[in-house]
Amino acid sequence: MPDSLVKDMLSLTASPALFAHLRVNAQRLRADFDQLAEIGATVAGGVSRLALSNEDLEARAWFANRVEDEGFVVRDDDAGNLSGVLHCPNPNAPTLLLGSHLDSVPNGGRYDGAVGVLAGLEVMRVLRDAAQPLPVHVEVIDFTDEEGCWQSLFGSRGLTGQLSAAHVSDANGDNSAFRAALTRAGIRPDDIGRARRDPHSLAGYLELHIEQGTQLERAGCTIGVVTHIVGRSTLKITFNGQAGHSGTTEPEKRRDALQGAALFILRAHTLIRDEYADGIFNCGNITVKPGQFNIIPEQAILTVECRHTAAPVLIEMEAALQYLAQKCADEYALSVGVVRTAHMPAAPMSPRCIQAIEQAAARLNLASAPVVSYAGHDAQMLASFCAAGMIFVPSLGGVSHNPREYTRWEDVTAGANVLLHAALELAFAR
Amino acid sequence: MPDSLVKDMLSLTASPALFAHLRVNAQRLRADFDQLAEIGATVAGGVSRLALSNEDLEARAWFANRVEDEGFVVRDDDAGNLSGVLHCPNPNAPTLLLGSHLDSVPNGGRYDGAVGVLAGLEVMRVLRDAAQPLPVHVEVIDFTDEEGCWQSLFGSRGLTGQLSAAHVSDANGDNSAFRAALTRAGIRPDDIGRARRDPHSLAGYLELHIEQGTQLERAGCTIGVVTHIVGRSTLKITFNGQAGHSGTTEPEKRRDALQGAALFILRAHTLIRDEYADGIFNCGNITVKPGQFNIIPEQAILTVECRHTAAPVLIEMEAALQYLAQKCADEYALSVGVVRTAHMPAAPMSPRCIQAIEQAAARLNLASAPVVSYAGHDAQMLASFCAAGMIFVPSLGGVSHNPREYTRWEDVTAGANVLLHAALELAFAR
Repeated sequence: MPDSLVKDMLSLTASPALFAHLRVNAQRLRADFDQLAEIGATVAGGVSRLALSNEDLEARAWFANRVEDEGFVVRDDDAGNLSGVLHCPNPNAPTLLLGSHLDSVPNGGRYDGAVGVLAGLEVMRVLRDAAQPLPVHVEVIDFTDEEGCWQSLFGSRGLTGQLSAAHVSDANGDNSAFRAALTRAGIRPDDIGRARRDPHSLAGYLELHIEQGTQLERAGCTIGVVTHIVGRSTLKITFNGQAGHSGTTEPEKRRDALQGAALFILRAHTLIRDEYADGIFNCGNITVKPGQFNIIPEQAILTVECRHTAAPVLIEMEAALQYLAQKCADEYALSVGVVRTAHMPAAPMSPRCIQAIEQAAARLNLASAPVVSYAGHDAQMLASFCAAGMIFVPSLGGVSHNPREYTRWEDVTAGANVLLHAALELAFAR
Repeated sequence: MPDSLVKDMLSLTASPALFAHLRVNAQRLRADFDQLAEIGATVAGGVSRLALSNEDLEARAWFANRVEDEGFVVRDDDAGNLSGVLHCPNPNAPTLLLGSHLDSVPNGGRYDGAVGVLAGLEVMRVLRDAAQPLPVHVEVIDFTDEEGCWQSLFGSRGLTGQLSAAHVSDANGDNSAFRAALTRAGIRPDDIGRARRDPHSLAGYLELHIEQGTQLERAGCTIGVVTHIVGRSTLKITFNGQAGHSGTTEPEKRRDALQGAALFILRAHTLIRDEYADGIFNCGNITVKPGQFNIIPEQAILTVECRHTAAPVLIEMEAALQYLAQKCADEYALSVGVVRTAHMPAAPMSPRCIQAIEQAAARLNLASAPVVSYAGHDAQMLASFCAAGMIFVPSLGGVSHNPREYTRWEDVTAGANVLLHAALELAFAR
């Protein structure tokens, strides 16, 4: 569409001043939040809605119903992303995306992801109720499998054209459980490449999310303006020794894969803490084979990840961990293999979005601070595709991925109001 | 039966001198060994015959057929122990038990257990072919679940009256998988107490087994005369921390159960090596919850065992490990729980059996040496019930519980000949 035509269209839209008084309805947002939290609710007070599980599918069905009940247009794509759309008068106008994800980690909290989707829906209701023509379509989106039960940021990878059928196949061209889960959810594995959208059709992407850390708590701020999202690599590290009878193998002949793995875990934490001040390391799982009390462990497989906001430093951390794994293996006469199973480069947020969020917070008299996201988010995928920004609200004690995850409702409301006004800022400042 | 009657009965039996020339048939024994090794054979060249699995049941059916084909009497009991009996003329004579077990650890070797059962069967064939009346019944026995897939030494605990229905129930009076496996094998879980035999009905128990260590190899001896069997305790150690998002939780707030567990594993190996010269420690498994790459481990459950030949030292080792677990937990702000899941006290072998084995080896011109068994065996259970003894033959490189487990066939044959003559020694020396 030629710029001249866009300018003409803008004349059809309302003046930004007409929206300045708008605020989200905290009670309406809360009612949605409480209903959604019942889906996949755990006894510990959190939720388990693993991507494409029955609970996730139930949450998606609930969301589609909410969208429809509110009179918005339901939309889905070939990567399973589920949206509600508020159309503006100009059919050729670009779309401003607001969203996050409805899936959770196992035994996770109620806020992570859910807040961003439900706030997006609430912002759309406020804009609809304002009954003033907007210069953009507004779309609230639930991205598929943000948490990586199957594949991290699956939906946002799909929308940005970073998925093909090969992504749901393993080295042998098969990945039957994942493919079956997709198919069951109505997503055709071979068509996921078709989820890509035209970047010019998007006016930007804004995501409200709980911080999952304590930067805001420590700074005494309600609103975090994310400047960049940390890069992340996930590694599978396999130590191989030799099985043997635990009681009868001479100590000097033991080749115990678990001892090598234990040494690596301790040293890796020390290495990253001492040598990479802003680096993060986690070993989240270990599997031992054959795993019997009276057999020396033959194999120990570690799932580890490392994060850093600077892309070259992250690469260096990976190399240092690989070197350390070899050293630990040597101490116990083991062999070791390191495979990178996932990688997400660090992503800076768009200056336009950062400014829009800062201005919205200032206009609402909310204290804001620039923050780094040490967690991955769908905004990371969108960042290389269109203008993307993220708004953080405080997590009590930084607890997250845990049933005790908690954000004060007034902070959720404040975040939703910043989302509303940052969206308007982006919509009109184009 | 009064002693006078026993003496009368002995007059019905042949003179021991008539048996002195007897030798086992190495080829016949080998043929059985090769057939059995096909049941549950693994691609790596070992066997997987977990107790009560399809493979174990197939091995038991094969064994019952062999017993029947040879014209011996098949016998089983309420703990699933399976026997062949060669009756002597005196129906009131006691029974000399020879045996071991047909089950294996996952992906184990072909010799462990199998050698003892098959050598017992071969000894019975030699005695039958000799066609001379014996003063005892001879019985070859396959004990249920020696390896502890469900419960270590289950069959020998049953025969010695150390099992009741409570042993197949967990704290809630249930243990459905174990009970189902027993039932499927034709063993009624509530009747296992009835497997107990009268100790006076037994003339003793002899078990031939591979050493699973290198004492014989280092001593250059073919025959190990076991003097005592190591005591063993199995512990379940649970470290509890707090789950959290791995990327956003502040380092000083991490309560990582896996780090505490890793520290314990390394320190426990060092502690036992440095402070308990003859003690053995193994951590055979670890399970992490929730086990996701991007979540700080909330719980790490270790399966550990420790062994020592001196009962009070074993108890002291357990206490030292418990203290160490608490110290490691403290370093990472974790809680820890230690539960003893199994305990087998150290067992000395009977002096009569030790002497019978030494004499048999000497008579066969085989170099023998006293050895300690660092592994548990059914003989451990029998030791407090009747005269029990064990004969070890060398394991190449001490490798065991591994497909590469290997004993030279001439050593297996030598061990079987010692079993034959030690059995005769015990039978006639009563």
